[in-house]
Amino acid sequence: MSAPRKIHQSLTRLEAFSDGVFAIAITLLVIEIKVPHLDHESTSTELLTALLALWPSYLGFAISFFAILVVWINHHRFFQSLIGSDCRLLVANGFLLFTVSAMPFPTAVLADYLTTPAASAASAVYAGSLVMLNLGFILVWRIAHSGGLLKEGSINRRLIFSLGLGFVVYLAAVFVAFISPYLSLALCMILWPYWALVER
Amino acid sequence: MSAPRKIHQSLTRLEAFSDGVFAIAITLLVIEIKVPHLDHESTSTELLTALLALWPSYLGFAISFFAILVVWINHHRFFQSLIGSDCRLLVANGFLLFTVSAMPFPTAVLADYLTTPAASAASAVYAGSLVMLNLGFILVWRIAHSGGLLKEGSINRRLIFSLGLGFVVYLAAVFVAFISPYLSLALCMILWPYWALVER
Amino acid sequence: MSAPRKIHQSLTRLEAFSDGVFAIAITLLVIEIKVPHLDHESTSTELLTALLALWPSYLGFAISFFAILVVWINHHRFFQSLIGSDCRLLVANGFLLFTVSAMPFPTAVLADYLTTPAASAASAVYAGSLVMLNLGFILVWRIAHSGGLLKEGSINRRLIFSLGLGFVVYLAAVFVAFISPYLSLALCMILWPYWALVER
Amino acid sequence: MSAPRKIHQSLTRLEAFSDGVFAIAITLLVIEIKVPHLDHESTSTELLTALLALWPSYLGFAISFFAILVVWINHHRFFQSLIGSDCRLLVANGFLLFTVSAMPFPTAVLADYLTTPAASAASAVYAGSLVMLNLGFILVWRIAHSGGLLKEGSINRRLIFSLGLGFVVYLAAVFVAFISPYLSLALCMILWPYWALVER
Repeated sequence: MSAPRKIHQSLTRLEAFSDGVFAIAITLLVIEIKVPHLDHESTSTELLTALLALWPSYLGFAISFFAILVVWINHHRFFQSLIGSDCRLLVANGFLLFTVSAMPFPTAVLADYLTTPAASAASAVYAGSLVMLNLGFILVWRIAHSGGLLKEGSINRRLIFSLGLGFVVYLAAVFVAFISPYLSLALCMILWPYWALVER
Repeated sequence: MSAPRKIHQSLTRLEAFSDGVFAIAITLLVIEIKVPHLDHESTSTELLTALLALWPSYLGFAISFFAILVVWINHHRFFQSLIGSDCRLLVANGFLLFTVSAMPFPTAVLADYLTTPAASAASAVYAGSLVMLNLGFILVWRIAHSGGLLKEGSINRRLIFSLGLGFVVYLAAVFVAFISPYLSLALCMILWPYWALVER
Repeated sequence: MSAPRKIHQSLTRLEAFSDGVFAIAITLLVIEIKVPHLDHESTSTELLTALLALWPSYLGFAISFFAILVVWINHHRFFQSLIGSDCRLLVANGFLLFTVSAMPFPTAVLADYLTTPAASAASAVYAGSLVMLNLGFILVWRIAHSGGLLKEGSINRRLIFSLGLGFVVYLAAVFVAFISPYLSLALCMILWPYWALVER
Repeated sequence: MSAPRKIHQSLTRLEAFSDGVFAIAITLLVIEIKVPHLDHESTSTELLTALLALWPSYLGFAISFFAILVVWINHHRFFQSLIGSDCRLLVANGFLLFTVSAMPFPTAVLADYLTTPAASAASAVYAGSLVMLNLGFILVWRIAHSGGLLKEGSINRRLIFSLGLGFVVYLAAVFVAFISPYLSLALCMILWPYWALVER
């Protein structure tokens, strides 16, 4: 830290790589939705019934898709306030991408167990993965802030508030899951209208 | 809306992220085609027969590939007529990408059930997912239009007409599926020569 | 065709989208290699034996990886000789990407049946998919040429020769597969040293 | 080699394609983690127990993620010291990407067999794939060096030292695997703090 730190002006490849991981993680979610296996005498009504019964998979897909999308949108904005990157930001951003790329797994767990007696564990694990996602973003912000990588004037108070709020709400969702899995999921989504509609 | 809205000039990362999702969704389609499992005494003739029997999978793959490709081509063109993006466009574009990334699932449903008695439901679901894709694009256009993000003079009459026509045809395909699944699929493809050959 | 055709100068997004499809198709190949399922008492020797027995999968992975890589390298070079793109090039390039994104399927067929009596059919199908890949590239070249999209002086004789040679060799490999599947695979790889070592 | 070699100034598409492969390989790792299949009467406690039992999968995912991330970070830096690319660099870089895209397979082997008597073979294969990854990078460096593609003054002593050290440590991990699989994994990770914390 005491040695002169190199700040690379170019963020292009870091953004391109991050965009790649975001885009792939968000698109891989659909892979976890399995086509129902009916016998080949089944009628259209039976197929539609079986498809409707997959609603926890669709719900998980939708929640995770928009959770990752919201992170991408904020990542996109946050990087516009950076003057460059250094070694530590690459690592912190790597940890954020790690939490993003892991999302298809807890999503599949949620989809498979939301309608079973294990729903509490499934939604707690799911909300926990959103906590990690949030922590990953907080880490990136901390590293950029402490490393002097932020443009002057871009204190990003709203981002800090958003991240702190997200952390509290997602963490609450982990514990609420053991009372009501559905309330936990609702908490996971409660901030989206705020993030989507409030002009930032 | 009454607050001053920020328009970000740069569309680069939005396009890069969208291209990523389009590219991944279009390439993931092939994952749903499963290699036939024959016993290990099977001859070349039996393998070829089994591979030919997978034609609904190939058909679904081809239709979805070109359906997504056509959306990408139009997305590509449409973004050339934008002066920038704002918060709401990011969200609307996110919804479009959601419908794009979901395509492998209805494609697999179609492939698995096109030759069964449940073909009507499978092709109705499939056409329905194309309706959603179309609606996603209409939403992006509406948001860009109402947000003043379109370059002057680029009224995109052809795009509006195209989208409207697509919506009507795809919606018709949903209902036609219950009369004839194959006619429904034909409707899904009927606009491609028009989109591909007419210079826009 | 008689109407004034629009040539878009910017190839950036077309290249980015193509790169995305190439990168994903080439990386998805590994998904088709399945970890052997041994019982949980198996020893290290048994695992190594089972892993070695998967050699047709590794071979298929390697051949398809480098086949797609060679197409990407040539795509990369070819696009440097373009002045822009038009509607028809987008469609032709889309067809090329279709053949690229389909590659994981014939690769998996080859891997599963190369050591069975159905090896001839498997390698014929595989070589056939390389013929399609080659045809896709020839189509892109034809469209670019006839549309006046090539930079002056870049007649690309070597590319034309390469594509023609590839077509003949891959087509021969389809028929040779019924005599010897391994000879067919060797034909599929015979042009790589030429493409890799000859300076173009 | 005696013929005049063409050096293409633009590295943009090569970087974009490489970033795509890195991003996809790193994100596909999660696909290999399978949701546990419990019967639908299982409780939250049973689900949590089953999820905890998957720790070898999480460990493999984490190790491979950061192993690929470290290679990407170094690839990123290394390309900043290049003046351009030529035919041979494209091929060498293609080999590196081959080793990167193969990583999900040995990772899945490790995850499936780390807690079985075949752990030695699984971790030897895993460490072996890191040796290949390292060799791929060394090849890219050699080709760039011998082809005169490096900027003057960028002798990259630290990179050479890093790569050499990585090679020795990963190769040791292959042999150590037959003594202790866990020690072998520890060796695979031992260089990360050095790579992440030492400013390069």
